[in-house]
Amino acid sequence: MKNVPPQTFKTAFRILWVDTDAAQVVHFSNYFRFFERAEEEFYRYLGFDFGDFGRKGLWFPRVEVFCRYKKPARFNDLIEVELTVEELREKSVRYGFKVANKESRDVLANGYLVAVVADRQTGKSVPIPVDIVEKLKPFHK
Amino acid sequence: MKNVPPQTFKTAFRILWVDTDAAQVVHFSNYFRFFERAEEEFYRYLGFDFGDFGRKGLWFPRVEVFCRYKKPARFNDLIEVELTVEELREKSVRYGFKVANKESRDVLANGYLVAVVADRQTGKSVPIPVDIVEKLKPFHK
Amino acid sequence: MKNVPPQTFKTAFRILWVDTDAAQVVHFSNYFRFFERAEEEFYRYLGFDFGDFGRKGLWFPRVEVFCRYKKPARFNDLIEVELTVEELREKSVRYGFKVANKESRDVLANGYLVAVVADRQTGKSVPIPVDIVEKLKPFHK
Amino acid sequence: MKNVPPQTFKTAFRILWVDTDAAQVVHFSNYFRFFERAEEEFYRYLGFDFGDFGRKGLWFPRVEVFCRYKKPARFNDLIEVELTVEELREKSVRYGFKVANKESRDVLANGYLVAVVADRQTGKSVPIPVDIVEKLKPFHK
Repeated sequence: MKNVPPQTFKTAFRILWVDTDAAQVVHFSNYFRFFERAEEEFYRYLGFDFGDFGRKGLWFPRVEVFCRYKKPARFNDLIEVELTVEELREKSVRYGFKVANKESRDVLANGYLVAVVADRQTGKSVPIPVDIVEKLKPFHK
Repeated sequence: MKNVPPQTFKTAFRILWVDTDAAQVVHFSNYFRFFERAEEEFYRYLGFDFGDFGRKGLWFPRVEVFCRYKKPARFNDLIEVELTVEELREKSVRYGFKVANKESRDVLANGYLVAVVADRQTGKSVPIPVDIVEKLKPFHK
Repeated sequence: MKNVPPQTFKTAFRILWVDTDAAQVVHFSNYFRFFERAEEEFYRYLGFDFGDFGRKGLWFPRVEVFCRYKKPARFNDLIEVELTVEELREKSVRYGFKVANKESRDVLANGYLVAVVADRQTGKSVPIPVDIVEKLKPFHK
Repeated sequence: MKNVPPQTFKTAFRILWVDTDAAQVVHFSNYFRFFERAEEEFYRYLGFDFGDFGRKGLWFPRVEVFCRYKKPARFNDLIEVELTVEELREKSVRYGFKVANKESRDVLANGYLVAVVADRQTGKSVPIPVDIVEKLKPFHK
Protein backbone atom coordinates (compact mmCIF):
# COMPACT_ATOMS: atom_id res chain seq x y z
CA MET A 1 0.00 0.00 0.00
CA LYS A 2 1.48 3.28 -1.13
CA ASN A 3 0.66 6.12 1.20
CA VAL A 4 3.65 8.32 0.57
CA PRO A 5 3.05 10.94 -2.12
CA PRO A 6 5.69 10.95 -4.86
CA GLN A 7 8.51 13.39 -4.49
CA THR A 8 9.09 16.05 -7.09
CA PHE A 9 12.31 17.74 -8.08
CA LYS A 10 12.42 21.47 -8.78
CA THR A 11 15.04 23.72 -10.26
CA ALA A 12 14.92 27.40 -11.22
CA PHE A 13 16.88 29.50 -13.69
CA ARG A 14 16.73 32.75 -15.63
CA ILE A 15 15.70 33.09 -19.26
CA LEU A 16 18.74 34.14 -21.29
CA TRP A 17 18.62 36.60 -24.17
CA VAL A 18 19.70 33.83 -26.54
CA ASP A 19 16.63 31.78 -25.55
CA THR A 20 14.30 34.40 -27.06
CA ASP A 21 13.16 34.90 -30.63
CA ALA A 22 11.83 37.82 -32.67
CA ALA A 23 8.43 37.55 -30.95
CA GLN A 24 10.37 38.59 -27.82
CA VAL A 25 9.43 35.37 -26.05
CA VAL A 26 11.27 32.09 -25.53
CA HIS A 27 11.45 29.99 -28.70
CA PHE A 28 9.20 26.95 -28.29
CA SER A 29 12.02 24.46 -28.97
CA ASN A 30 13.93 25.76 -25.96
CA TYR A 31 11.41 24.31 -23.51
CA PHE A 32 12.79 20.89 -24.40
CA ARG A 33 16.23 22.17 -23.51
CA PHE A 34 14.80 23.34 -20.19
CA PHE A 35 13.27 19.89 -19.65
CA GLU A 36 16.62 18.27 -20.33
CA ARG A 37 18.45 20.72 -18.10
CA ALA A 38 16.07 19.87 -15.24
CA GLU A 39 16.65 16.17 -15.96
CA GLU A 40 20.43 16.66 -15.79
CA GLU A 41 20.19 18.56 -12.51
CA PHE A 42 17.87 15.86 -11.18
CA TYR A 43 20.47 13.19 -11.98
CA ARG A 44 23.15 15.20 -10.23
CA TYR A 45 20.81 15.62 -7.25
CA LEU A 46 20.39 11.82 -7.19
CA GLY A 47 24.17 11.41 -7.09
CA PHE A 48 24.25 9.82 -10.51
CA ASP A 49 27.73 9.37 -12.02
CA PHE A 50 27.57 10.66 -15.61
CA GLY A 51 31.24 9.88 -16.20
CA ASP A 52 30.85 6.24 -15.27
CA PHE A 53 27.67 5.97 -17.33
CA GLY A 54 29.41 7.42 -20.38
CA ARG A 55 32.47 5.22 -19.99
CA LYS A 56 30.17 2.17 -20.09
CA GLY A 57 29.02 3.43 -23.48
CA LEU A 58 25.50 4.11 -22.27
CA TRP A 59 23.32 7.09 -23.08
CA PHE A 60 19.68 8.21 -22.91
CA PRO A 61 18.04 8.41 -26.34
CA ARG A 62 14.64 10.08 -26.36
CA VAL A 63 11.70 8.12 -27.74
CA GLU A 64 8.88 10.60 -27.51
CA VAL A 65 8.49 14.18 -26.33
CA PHE A 66 5.58 16.56 -25.96
CA CYS A 67 4.93 20.11 -24.81
CA ARG A 68 1.81 22.24 -24.41
CA TYR A 69 2.36 25.98 -24.14
CA LYS A 70 0.15 28.16 -21.93
CA LYS A 71 1.86 31.52 -21.53
CA PRO A 72 5.10 32.92 -22.92
CA ALA A 73 8.32 33.37 -20.97
CA ARG A 74 10.42 36.46 -21.64
CA PHE A 75 14.04 37.52 -21.26
CA ASN A 76 15.23 37.65 -17.66
CA ASP A 77 12.16 35.83 -16.29
CA LEU A 78 12.93 33.47 -13.46
CA ILE A 79 11.36 30.13 -14.31
CA GLU A 80 10.93 27.01 -12.25
CA VAL A 81 10.87 23.55 -13.78
CA GLU A 82 9.25 20.75 -11.79
CA LEU A 83 10.05 17.16 -12.70
CA THR A 84 8.13 14.02 -11.77
CA VAL A 85 8.58 10.40 -12.78
CA GLU A 86 5.30 9.67 -14.56
CA GLU A 87 6.09 6.14 -15.65
CA LEU A 88 8.89 3.75 -14.78
CA ARG A 89 9.33 0.61 -16.88
CA GLU A 90 12.11 -1.91 -17.29
CA LYS A 91 13.55 -0.14 -20.30
CA SER A 92 12.01 3.33 -20.28
CA VAL A 93 11.18 6.21 -18.04
CA ARG A 94 8.70 9.00 -18.68
CA TYR A 95 9.44 12.30 -16.98
CA GLY A 96 6.71 14.90 -16.65
CA PHE A 97 7.62 18.58 -16.54
CA LYS A 98 5.81 21.71 -15.47
CA VAL A 99 7.36 25.08 -16.24
CA ALA A 100 6.14 28.06 -14.22
CA ASN A 101 7.14 31.66 -13.76
CA LYS A 102 8.63 31.52 -10.27
CA GLU A 103 7.55 35.04 -9.42
CA SER A 104 3.98 35.22 -10.79
CA ARG A 105 3.40 31.45 -10.26
CA ASP A 106 1.78 31.30 -13.72
CA VAL A 107 2.13 27.93 -15.40
CA LEU A 108 3.88 28.51 -18.71
CA ALA A 109 4.07 25.02 -20.18
CA ASN A 110 3.89 21.37 -19.37
CA GLY A 111 5.05 18.31 -21.17
CA TYR A 112 6.90 15.05 -21.00
CA LEU A 113 9.90 13.19 -22.27
CA VAL A 114 10.21 9.40 -22.62
CA ALA A 115 13.80 8.19 -22.45
CA VAL A 116 15.40 4.79 -22.75
CA VAL A 117 18.90 3.65 -21.93
CA ALA A 118 20.91 2.46 -24.92
CA ASP A 119 24.28 0.96 -25.60
CA ARG A 120 26.16 3.23 -28.00
CA GLN A 121 28.00 0.30 -29.62
CA THR A 122 24.98 -1.81 -30.50
CA GLY A 123 22.45 1.03 -30.69
CA LYS A 124 20.03 -1.19 -28.75
CA SER A 125 18.10 -0.27 -25.64
CA VAL A 126 19.03 -2.06 -22.41
CA PRO A 127 17.27 -2.32 -19.03
CA ILE A 128 17.66 0.81 -16.92
CA PRO A 129 20.51 0.06 -14.46
CA VAL A 130 19.15 -1.11 -11.08
CA ASP A 131 20.83 1.65 -9.09
CA ILE A 132 19.10 4.26 -11.23
CA VAL A 133 15.72 2.53 -10.91
CA GLU A 134 16.07 2.55 -7.11
CA LYS A 135 16.85 6.25 -7.09
CA LEU A 136 13.91 7.06 -9.36
CA LYS A 137 11.29 5.12 -7.40
CA PRO A 138 10.54 7.75 -4.73
CA PHE A 139 9.73 10.23 -7.52
CA HIS A 140 7.32 7.87 -9.24
CA LYS A 141 3.66 8.75 -8.91
CA MET B 1 -17.01 14.45 -51.96
CA LYS B 2 -13.29 14.79 -51.73
CA ASN B 3 -11.49 12.75 -54.35
CA VAL B 4 -8.30 14.73 -54.60
CA PRO B 5 -5.59 13.46 -52.26
CA PRO B 6 -4.06 16.18 -50.10
CA GLN B 7 -0.84 17.70 -51.32
CA THR B 8 2.29 17.43 -49.26
CA PHE B 9 5.24 19.78 -49.13
CA LYS B 10 8.78 18.41 -48.95
CA THR B 11 12.11 20.02 -48.31
CA ALA B 12 15.57 18.52 -47.82
CA PHE B 13 18.69 19.72 -46.06
CA ARG B 14 21.94 18.50 -44.55
CA ILE B 15 22.55 17.89 -40.86
CA LEU B 16 25.06 20.45 -39.62
CA TRP B 17 27.80 19.71 -37.11
CA VAL B 18 26.18 22.11 -34.65
CA ASP B 19 22.95 20.06 -34.77
CA THR B 20 24.70 17.08 -33.17
CA ASP B 21 25.41 16.30 -29.54
CA ALA B 22 27.93 14.15 -27.67
CA ALA B 23 26.03 10.97 -28.64
CA GLN B 24 27.12 11.89 -32.20
CA VAL B 25 23.51 12.15 -33.33
CA VAL B 26 21.16 15.10 -33.78
CA HIS B 27 19.96 16.53 -30.46
CA PHE B 28 16.28 15.72 -30.04
CA SER B 29 15.24 19.36 -29.61
CA ASN B 30 16.57 20.19 -33.08
CA TYR B 31 13.81 18.19 -34.79
CA PHE B 32 11.44 20.96 -33.75
CA ARG B 33 13.75 23.43 -35.44
CA PHE B 34 13.61 21.23 -38.55
CA PHE B 35 9.80 21.20 -38.34
CA GLU B 36 9.76 24.98 -38.13
CA ARG B 37 12.25 25.33 -40.97
CA ALA B 38 9.99 23.18 -43.16
CA GLU B 39 7.02 25.32 -42.11
CA GLU B 40 8.90 28.51 -43.08
CA GLU B 41 9.88 27.09 -46.46
CA PHE B 42 6.30 25.95 -46.96
CA TYR B 43 5.06 29.50 -46.34
CA ARG B 44 7.56 30.86 -48.82
CA TYR B 45 6.46 28.20 -51.32
CA LEU B 46 2.85 29.39 -50.85
CA GLY B 47 3.93 32.94 -51.60
CA PHE B 48 3.19 34.11 -48.09
CA ASP B 49 4.41 37.64 -47.26
CA PHE B 50 6.22 37.41 -43.89
CA GLY B 51 7.05 41.12 -43.93
CA ASP B 52 3.42 42.16 -44.30
CA PHE B 53 2.37 39.66 -41.64
CA GLY B 54 4.94 41.00 -39.20
CA ARG B 55 4.06 44.63 -39.90
CA LYS B 56 0.44 43.83 -38.98
CA GLY B 57 1.79 42.71 -35.60
CA LEU B 58 0.81 39.09 -36.18
CA TRP B 59 2.81 35.99 -35.34
CA PHE B 60 2.39 32.24 -34.94
CA PRO B 61 2.60 31.11 -31.31
CA ARG B 62 2.78 27.36 -30.84
CA VAL B 63 0.15 25.69 -28.68
CA GLU B 64 1.26 22.09 -28.67
CA VAL B 65 4.10 20.11 -30.19
CA PHE B 66 5.05 16.44 -30.28
CA CYS B 67 7.76 14.26 -31.73
CA ARG B 68 8.41 10.50 -31.78
CA TYR B 69 11.94 9.41 -32.62
CA LYS B 70 12.62 6.24 -34.63
CA LYS B 71 16.23 6.36 -35.76
CA PRO B 72 19.00 8.87 -35.23
CA ALA B 73 20.29 11.34 -37.80
CA ARG B 74 24.01 12.05 -37.95
CA PHE B 75 26.29 14.83 -39.15
CA ASN B 76 26.16 15.39 -42.91
CA ASP B 77 23.07 13.19 -43.41
CA LEU B 78 20.69 14.51 -46.02
CA ILE B 79 17.25 14.57 -44.46
CA GLU B 80 13.87 15.22 -45.98
CA VAL B 81 11.03 16.79 -44.05
CA GLU B 82 7.49 16.24 -45.31
CA LEU B 83 4.74 18.57 -44.14
CA THR B 84 0.99 18.01 -44.28
CA VAL B 85 -1.92 20.03 -42.91
CA GLU B 86 -3.50 17.61 -40.47
CA GLU B 87 -6.16 19.91 -39.09
CA LEU B 88 -7.39 23.32 -40.18
CA ARG B 89 -9.65 25.27 -37.84
CA GLU B 90 -10.78 28.87 -37.67
CA LYS B 91 -8.03 29.82 -35.25
CA SER B 92 -5.49 27.01 -35.38
CA VAL B 93 -3.65 24.77 -37.77
CA ARG B 94 -1.98 21.48 -37.02
CA TYR B 95 0.96 20.55 -39.23
CA GLY B 96 2.18 16.98 -39.36
CA PHE B 97 5.83 16.26 -40.09
CA LYS B 98 7.74 13.20 -41.20
CA VAL B 99 11.53 13.30 -41.17
CA ALA B 100 13.34 10.72 -43.29
CA ASN B 101 16.89 10.06 -44.37
CA LYS B 102 16.66 11.02 -48.04
CA GLU B 103 19.25 8.48 -49.11
CA SER B 104 18.29 5.37 -47.11
CA ARG B 105 14.57 6.34 -47.03
CA ASP B 106 14.49 5.38 -43.33
CA VAL B 107 11.91 7.29 -41.35
CA LEU B 108 13.75 9.05 -38.51
CA ALA B 109 10.96 10.85 -36.70
CA ASN B 110 7.45 12.11 -36.98
CA GLY B 111 5.49 14.64 -35.07
CA TYR B 112 3.22 17.64 -35.18
CA LEU B 113 2.96 21.27 -34.28
CA VAL B 114 -0.26 23.17 -33.53
CA ALA B 115 0.00 26.89 -34.25
CA VAL B 116 -2.40 29.77 -33.84
CA VAL B 117 -2.22 33.30 -35.18
CA ALA B 118 -1.95 35.97 -32.50
CA ASP B 119 -1.86 39.73 -32.32
CA ARG B 120 1.39 40.80 -30.63
CA GLN B 121 -0.24 43.88 -29.05
CA THR B 122 -3.15 42.11 -27.36
CA GLY B 123 -1.52 38.71 -27.02
CA LYS B 124 -4.83 37.18 -28.16
CA SER B 125 -5.34 34.67 -30.91
CA VAL B 126 -7.23 35.85 -34.01
CA PRO B 127 -8.80 33.94 -36.92
CA ILE B 128 -6.23 32.72 -39.44
CA PRO B 129 -6.30 35.27 -42.28
CA VAL B 130 -8.53 34.10 -45.16
CA ASP B 131 -5.79 34.22 -47.78
CA ILE B 132 -3.68 31.85 -45.69
CA VAL B 133 -6.59 29.48 -45.13
CA GLU B 134 -7.21 29.30 -48.87
CA LYS B 135 -3.55 28.49 -49.53
CA LEU B 136 -3.52 25.79 -46.84
CA LYS B 137 -6.66 23.98 -47.99
CA PRO B 138 -5.11 21.87 -50.78
CA PHE B 139 -2.64 20.48 -48.22
CA HIS B 140 -5.36 19.49 -45.79
CA LYS B 141 -6.04 15.78 -45.49
CA MET C 1 46.57 57.71 -9.48
CA LYS C 2 44.79 54.43 -9.51
CA ASN C 3 45.86 52.12 -6.74
CA VAL C 4 42.78 49.98 -6.45
CA PRO C 5 42.91 46.87 -8.64
CA PRO C 6 39.87 46.44 -10.88
CA GLN C 7 37.15 44.18 -9.60
CA THR C 8 36.20 41.09 -11.56
CA PHE C 9 32.88 39.29 -11.71
CA LYS C 10 32.72 35.50 -11.69
CA THR C 11 29.93 33.06 -12.32
CA ALA C 12 29.93 29.27 -12.61
CA PHE C 13 27.65 26.78 -14.31
CA ARG C 14 27.52 23.24 -15.64
CA ILE C 15 27.96 22.25 -19.28
CA LEU C 16 24.66 20.90 -20.57
CA TRP C 17 24.35 17.95 -22.94
CA VAL C 18 22.87 20.28 -25.58
CA ASP C 19 26.03 22.43 -25.45
CA THR C 20 28.12 19.55 -26.82
CA ASP C 21 28.67 18.39 -30.40
CA ALA C 22 29.70 15.15 -32.06
CA ALA C 23 33.34 15.67 -30.99
CA GLN C 24 31.95 15.22 -27.45
CA VAL C 25 33.09 18.69 -26.46
CA VAL C 26 31.32 22.04 -26.24
CA HIS C 27 30.61 23.54 -29.66
CA PHE C 28 32.84 26.58 -30.17
CA SER C 29 29.92 28.94 -30.84
CA ASN C 30 28.53 28.24 -27.37
CA TYR C 31 31.38 30.06 -25.66
CA PHE C 32 29.84 33.28 -26.91
CA ARG C 33 26.60 32.23 -25.27
CA PHE C 34 28.56 31.66 -22.06
CA PHE C 35 30.11 35.12 -22.40
CA GLU C 36 26.67 36.65 -22.81
CA ARG C 37 25.26 34.66 -19.91
CA ALA C 38 28.05 35.99 -17.68
CA GLU C 39 27.33 39.50 -18.94
CA GLU C 40 23.62 39.10 -18.08
CA GLU C 41 24.40 37.82 -14.60
CA PHE C 42 26.87 40.67 -14.15
CA TYR C 43 24.14 43.20 -15.00
CA ARG C 44 21.81 41.57 -12.51
CA TYR C 45 24.60 41.67 -9.93
CA LEU C 46 24.96 45.41 -10.59
CA GLY C 47 21.25 45.87 -9.99
CA PHE C 48 20.61 46.83 -13.58
CA ASP C 49 16.91 47.08 -14.56
CA PHE C 50 16.52 45.15 -17.85
CA GLY C 51 12.79 45.89 -17.97
CA ASP C 52 13.27 49.64 -17.78
CA PHE C 53 16.08 49.48 -20.34
CA GLY C 54 13.90 47.54 -22.76
CA ARG C 55 10.91 49.84 -22.29
CA LYS C 56 13.13 52.78 -23.29
CA GLY C 57 13.73 50.91 -26.54
CA LEU C 58 17.42 50.38 -25.82
CA TRP C 59 19.48 47.26 -26.42
CA PHE C 60 23.11 46.15 -26.63
CA PRO C 61 24.18 45.31 -30.18
CA ARG C 62 27.55 43.61 -30.44
CA VAL C 63 30.19 45.25 -32.61
CA GLU C 64 33.06 42.80 -32.39
CA VAL C 65 33.69 39.48 -30.67
CA PHE C 66 36.66 37.16 -30.36
CA CYS C 67 37.52 33.88 -28.70
CA ARG C 68 40.70 31.80 -28.43
CA TYR C 69 40.26 28.17 -27.42
CA LYS C 70 42.83 26.40 -25.23
CA LYS C 71 41.24 23.19 -23.97
CA PRO C 72 37.84 21.61 -24.54
CA ALA C 73 34.98 21.56 -22.06
CA ARG C 74 32.84 18.44 -21.81
CA PHE C 75 29.33 17.52 -20.69
CA ASN C 76 28.75 18.05 -16.98
CA ASP C 77 31.97 20.04 -16.46
CA LEU C 78 31.63 22.88 -14.01
CA ILE C 79 33.00 25.97 -15.68
CA GLU C 80 33.70 29.40 -14.31
CA VAL C 81 33.48 32.54 -16.43
CA GLU C 82 35.35 35.62 -15.26
CA LEU C 83 34.36 39.01 -16.66
CA THR C 84 36.37 42.22 -16.62
CA VAL C 85 35.71 45.62 -18.18
CA GLU C 86 38.65 45.98 -20.54
CA GLU C 87 37.67 49.26 -22.12
CA LEU C 88 34.99 51.81 -21.25
CA ARG C 89 34.20 54.54 -23.79
CA GLU C 90 31.35 56.99 -24.19
CA LYS C 91 29.47 54.73 -26.57
CA SER C 92 31.02 51.30 -26.17
CA VAL C 93 32.25 48.84 -23.61
CA ARG C 94 34.63 45.95 -24.13
CA TYR C 95 34.22 43.02 -21.79
CA GLY C 96 37.01 40.48 -21.43
CA PHE C 97 36.17 36.89 -20.53
CA LYS C 98 38.18 33.98 -19.20
CA VAL C 99 36.57 30.55 -19.10
CA ALA C 100 38.13 27.96 -16.80
CA ASN C 101 37.28 24.51 -15.55
CA LYS C 102 36.36 25.30 -11.95
CA GLU C 103 37.62 21.96 -10.66
CA SER C 104 40.92 21.50 -12.54
CA ARG C 105 41.50 25.30 -12.78
CA ASP C 106 42.57 24.79 -16.41
CA VAL C 107 41.92 27.82 -18.59
CA LEU C 108 39.67 26.68 -21.44
CA ALA C 109 39.18 29.85 -23.46
CA ASN C 110 39.45 33.59 -23.36
CA GLY C 111 37.96 36.30 -25.47
CA TYR C 112 36.13 39.56 -25.59
CA LEU C 113 32.94 41.21 -26.69
CA VAL C 114 32.52 44.87 -27.65
CA ALA C 115 28.98 46.16 -27.13
CA VAL C 116 27.32 49.48 -27.77
CA VAL C 117 23.96 50.80 -26.61
CA ALA C 118 21.50 51.47 -29.41
CA ASP C 119 18.03 52.89 -29.80
CA ARG C 120 15.82 50.26 -31.42
CA GLN C 121 13.72 52.90 -33.24
CA THR C 122 16.54 54.75 -34.93
CA GLY C 123 19.03 51.87 -35.02
CA LYS C 124 21.73 54.36 -33.92
CA SER C 125 24.12 53.98 -31.03
CA VAL C 126 23.69 56.33 -28.08
CA PRO C 127 25.96 57.17 -25.13
CA ILE C 128 25.97 54.48 -22.46
CA PRO C 129 23.54 55.70 -19.74
CA VAL C 130 25.42 57.44 -16.91
CA ASP C 131 24.11 55.11 -14.20
CA ILE C 132 25.51 52.11 -16.11
CA VAL C 133 28.87 53.82 -16.63
CA GLU C 134 29.14 54.50 -12.89
CA LYS C 135 28.41 50.86 -12.09
CA LEU C 136 30.95 49.60 -14.61
CA LYS C 137 33.84 51.82 -13.46
CA PRO C 138 35.04 49.69 -10.52
CA PHE C 139 35.42 46.73 -12.92
CA HIS C 140 37.49 48.71 -15.39
CA LYS C 141 41.17 47.86 -15.49
CA MET D 1 54.83 34.57 -59.51
CA LYS D 2 51.19 34.22 -58.69
CA ASN D 3 48.94 35.64 -61.36
CA VAL D 4 45.78 33.66 -60.72
CA PRO D 5 43.45 35.35 -58.21
CA PRO D 6 42.32 33.09 -55.39
CA GLN D 7 38.96 31.41 -55.80
CA THR D 8 36.18 32.09 -53.34
CA PHE D 9 33.31 29.86 -52.31
CA LYS D 10 29.84 31.28 -51.83
CA THR D 11 26.68 29.85 -50.38
CA ALA D 12 23.32 31.46 -49.62
CA PHE D 13 20.53 30.64 -47.20
CA ARG D 14 17.55 32.16 -45.43
CA ILE D 15 17.53 33.43 -41.86
CA LEU D 16 15.28 31.18 -39.79
CA TRP D 17 12.97 32.40 -37.05
CA VAL D 18 15.00 30.44 -34.50
CA ASP D 19 18.13 32.39 -35.50
CA THR D 20 16.62 35.64 -34.20
CA ASP D 21 16.48 37.07 -30.69
CA ALA D 22 14.28 39.56 -28.87
CA ALA D 23 15.95 42.48 -30.68
CA GLN D 24 14.32 40.96 -33.80
CA VAL D 25 17.70 40.44 -35.42
CA VAL D 26 19.99 37.42 -35.71
CA HIS D 27 21.73 36.59 -32.43
CA PHE D 28 25.42 37.42 -32.75
CA SER D 29 26.56 33.89 -31.84
CA ASN D 30 24.72 32.48 -34.85
CA TYR D 31 27.13 34.09 -37.31
CA PHE D 32 29.68 31.53 -36.18
CA ARG D 33 27.16 28.83 -37.03
CA PHE D 34 26.77 30.42 -40.46
CA PHE D 35 30.56 30.45 -40.87
CA GLU D 36 30.69 26.75 -39.99
CA ARG D 37 27.79 25.94 -42.28
CA ALA D 38 29.63 27.63 -45.16
CA GLU D 39 32.76 25.68 -44.24
CA GLU D 40 30.80 22.40 -44.31
CA GLU D 41 29.27 23.19 -47.69
CA PHE D 42 32.71 24.18 -48.95
CA TYR D 43 34.09 20.78 -47.92
CA ARG D 44 31.24 19.03 -49.69
CA TYR D 45 31.91 21.18 -52.76
CA LEU D 46 35.55 20.05 -52.64
CA GLY D 47 34.42 16.42 -52.58
CA PHE D 48 35.73 15.91 -49.08
CA ASP D 49 34.71 12.61 -47.43
CA PHE D 50 33.46 13.46 -43.92
CA GLY D 51 32.70 9.81 -43.16
CA ASP D 52 36.23 8.67 -43.91
CA PHE D 53 37.67 11.60 -41.95
CA GLY D 54 35.54 10.75 -38.92
CA ARG D 55 36.35 7.03 -39.08
CA LYS D 56 40.07 7.94 -38.91
CA GLY D 57 39.25 9.68 -35.63
CA LEU D 58 40.05 13.10 -36.99
CA TRP D 59 38.15 16.33 -36.42
CA PHE D 60 38.60 20.09 -36.77
CA PRO D 61 38.95 21.86 -33.43
CA ARG D 62 38.77 25.64 -33.61
CA VAL D 63 41.71 27.61 -32.22
CA GLU D 64 40.56 31.18 -32.68
CA VAL D 65 37.48 32.90 -34.06
CA PHE D 66 36.48 36.50 -34.65
CA CYS D 67 33.53 38.43 -36.02
CA ARG D 68 32.84 42.12 -36.63
CA TYR D 69 29.20 43.10 -37.09
CA LYS D 70 28.17 45.88 -39.49
CA LYS D 71 24.40 45.60 -39.98
CA PRO D 72 21.80 43.26 -38.57
CA ALA D 73 20.15 40.39 -40.43
CA ARG D 74 16.46 39.72 -39.87
CA PHE D 75 14.06 36.81 -40.15
CA ASN D 76 13.61 35.58 -43.72
CA ASP D 77 16.54 37.60 -45.09
CA LEU D 78 18.49 35.81 -47.78
CA ILE D 79 22.14 35.98 -46.81
CA GLU D 80 25.25 35.02 -48.70
CA VAL D 81 28.38 33.78 -46.99
CA GLU D 82 31.65 34.05 -48.88
CA LEU D 83 34.60 31.94 -47.76
CA THR D 84 38.27 32.40 -48.60
CA VAL D 85 41.37 30.60 -47.38
CA GLU D 86 43.30 33.41 -45.69
CA GLU D 87 46.18 31.35 -44.37
CA LEU D 88 47.27 27.78 -45.02
CA ARG D 89 49.90 26.25 -42.74
CA GLU D 90 51.10 22.72 -42.11
CA LYS D 91 48.78 22.26 -39.15
CA SER D 92 46.22 25.04 -39.41
CA VAL D 93 43.99 26.83 -41.83
CA ARG D 94 42.41 30.25 -41.42
CA TYR D 95 39.14 30.79 -43.25
CA GLY D 96 37.87 34.31 -43.82
CA PHE D 97 34.13 34.94 -44.09
CA LYS D 98 32.03 37.78 -45.40
CA VAL D 99 28.29 37.73 -44.75
CA ALA D 100 26.12 39.92 -46.97
CA ASN D 101 22.44 40.42 -47.58
CA LYS D 102 22.09 38.80 -51.00
CA GLU D 103 19.32 41.17 -52.08
CA SER D 104 20.55 44.58 -50.85
CA ARG D 105 24.24 43.56 -51.19
CA ASP D 106 24.91 45.19 -47.80
CA VAL D 107 27.81 43.63 -45.94
CA LEU D 108 26.47 42.42 -42.57
CA ALA D 109 29.53 40.93 -40.92
CA ASN D 110 32.98 39.61 -41.55
CA GLY D 111 35.25 37.43 -39.55
CA TYR D 112 37.50 34.44 -39.49
CA LEU D 113 37.98 31.01 -38.00
CA VAL D 114 41.30 29.23 -37.45
CA ALA D 115 40.97 25.45 -37.44
CA VAL D 116 43.46 22.66 -36.91
CA VAL D 117 43.12 18.93 -37.55
CA ALA D 118 43.32 16.80 -34.42
CA ASP D 119 43.32 13.14 -33.54
CA ARG D 120 40.39 12.44 -31.20
CA GLN D 121 42.30 9.69 -29.36
CA THR D 122 45.39 11.66 -28.49
CA GLY D 123 43.80 15.12 -28.52
CA LYS D 124 46.87 16.37 -30.43
CA SER D 125 46.89 18.32 -33.66
CA VAL D 126 48.28 16.58 -36.74
CA PRO D 127 49.33 17.91 -40.16
CA ILE D 128 46.39 18.70 -42.43
CA PRO D 129 46.04 15.67 -44.75
CA VAL D 130 47.78 16.27 -48.10
CA ASP D 131 44.65 15.72 -50.17
CA ILE D 132 42.86 18.45 -48.24
CA VAL D 133 45.80 20.84 -48.58
CA GLU D 134 45.80 20.34 -52.36
CA LYS D 135 42.08 21.09 -52.54
CA LEU D 136 42.43 24.23 -50.42
CA LYS D 137 45.34 25.76 -52.38
CA PRO D 138 43.32 27.34 -55.21
CA PHE D 139 41.25 29.21 -52.58
CA HIS D 140 44.33 30.58 -50.82
CA LYS D 141 45.00 34.27 -51.34
